[in-house]
Amino acid sequence: MGSVLVLGGARSGKSVFAEGLVRAASNAPVYLATARAGDEEMLTRIDAHQRQRGTDWLTVEEPLALVDTLRNEAIAGRAILVDCLTLWLSNLMIADADIEIESKALADCAGNLPVPVVFVSNEVGQGIVPENKMARDFRDHAGRLHQMMAASCDEVWFITAGLSQKLK
Amino acid sequence: MGSVLVLGGARSGKSVFAEGLVRAASNAPVYLATARAGDEEMLTRIDAHQRQRGTDWLTVEEPLALVDTLRNEAIAGRAILVDCLTLWLSNLMIADADIEIESKALADCAGNLPVPVVFVSNEVGQGIVPENKMARDFRDHAGRLHQMMAASCDEVWFITAGLSQKLK
Amino acid sequence: MGSVLVLGGARSGKSVFAEGLVRAASNAPVYLATARAGDEEMLTRIDAHQRQRGTDWLTVEEPLALVDTLRNEAIAGRAILVDCLTLWLSNLMIADADIEIESKALADCAGNLPVPVVFVSNEVGQGIVPENKMARDFRDHAGRLHQMMAASCDEVWFITAGLSQKLK
Repeated sequence: MGSVLVLGGARSGKSVFAEGLVRAASNAPVYLATARAGDEEMLTRIDAHQRQRGTDWLTVEEPLALVDTLRNEAIAGRAILVDCLTLWLSNLMIADADIEIESKALADCAGNLPVPVVFVSNEVGQGIVPENKMARDFRDHAGRLHQMMAASCDEVWFITAGLSQKLK
Repeated sequence: MGSVLVLGGARSGKSVFAEGLVRAASNAPVYLATARAGDEEMLTRIDAHQRQRGTDWLTVEEPLALVDTLRNEAIAGRAILVDCLTLWLSNLMIADADIEIESKALADCAGNLPVPVVFVSNEVGQGIVPENKMARDFRDHAGRLHQMMAASCDEVWFITAGLSQKLK
Repeated sequence: MGSVLVLGGARSGKSVFAEGLVRAASNAPVYLATARAGDEEMLTRIDAHQRQRGTDWLTVEEPLALVDTLRNEAIAGRAILVDCLTLWLSNLMIADADIEIESKALADCAGNLPVPVVFVSNEVGQGIVPENKMARDFRDHAGRLHQMMAASCDEVWFITAGLSQKLK
């Protein structure tokens, strides 16, 4: 399967679609969550996702060092689901990291992993220009990351209302 | 024709596309409007839509009890255009209804109507995460409803700049 | 090549895609920028775009009189890239112009130019309904303009993460 990027809007069914791809590639896959545990609303979502996936997944939480974690997990030979890149970007911005360097490193890594890996990310750039600068910066970072990831991944899918379109 | 879901952004031409489908299926179709008459901006839109459709349509207004109204109207054997699901969701939230139960009931009904029916709904989940909780809840509800509706409808279309893509 | 509309979200790669189309049609194309020089954030973007395109382009800046400028530039026989229509709409709103008349004039012009022309525009209508009236008006204007332009252009493309889908 190689590397796959799954894009879609909020509640578009992208995580379920991505889980299907990963499960088809491995019967004991890794769920690499980029969410921080500090946010209650987010915890509720993570819990719901975990119940939905079932217990055959190994969950690894890493909000920032995504490239290192991917390389470490890949050694075990399991398929990996990364959910999601937009949360990772948000964590990087809060940590004042260099987003361009981090994005490029992830795209380079994505094209060279020895295991199947599926990246989930939110499309956030098709609404009105946000009024606050941080939100504008965030969607710029997301758009550039998606372009880099789409260029290095083997497949790219866009999910709408649970239905998939293959973009690459 | 069966049941059809037509998704698209604001001013994407989704209503005109949906009207074309319904008109092709029936020469005296029902326009089931979910808009509340209280909102002046909305009334202007409804008026513009009515002028555009012409006089051969029977207009029925129902902001909340969509499933019952669909079943009642279906008895007459005419094709039905429901415009739109996002307004209906908004009305349900204001009425403090159980959105998950209502969404499931509509999706079940959509797959079992004896007349052609076309549902129009706005894609609202591809912009930046909204700052206020109610807007985030709304787009979550819309995304989940779209997934359920897409699963039970026979056809799903996405409209951009007046151009249609068949998703299912 | 005729006339082409290239739509996409923020940082979707739509300008690079459009530049490729224009460059293939002409080795000395015109870059028709609709940006106003007054906005620092925008100037940074224009500079970045200019460095990226290289020096074989003739840059023309016109925030408002797009139809007249297109007709004048078309006399020289070079292909033209218009970047972008959403900024032009924003300038028209600030200038209190009649958006419907201007949009119709541009769409009429787009279908009748004697040179290849590519219009870039932002999809802004697939997020949550904006809270302020001006933003709602803006996305309504953008949606209607996109429908008119898509109807008169020979080709329409939608760009996501640097990947293109042909809509027409």
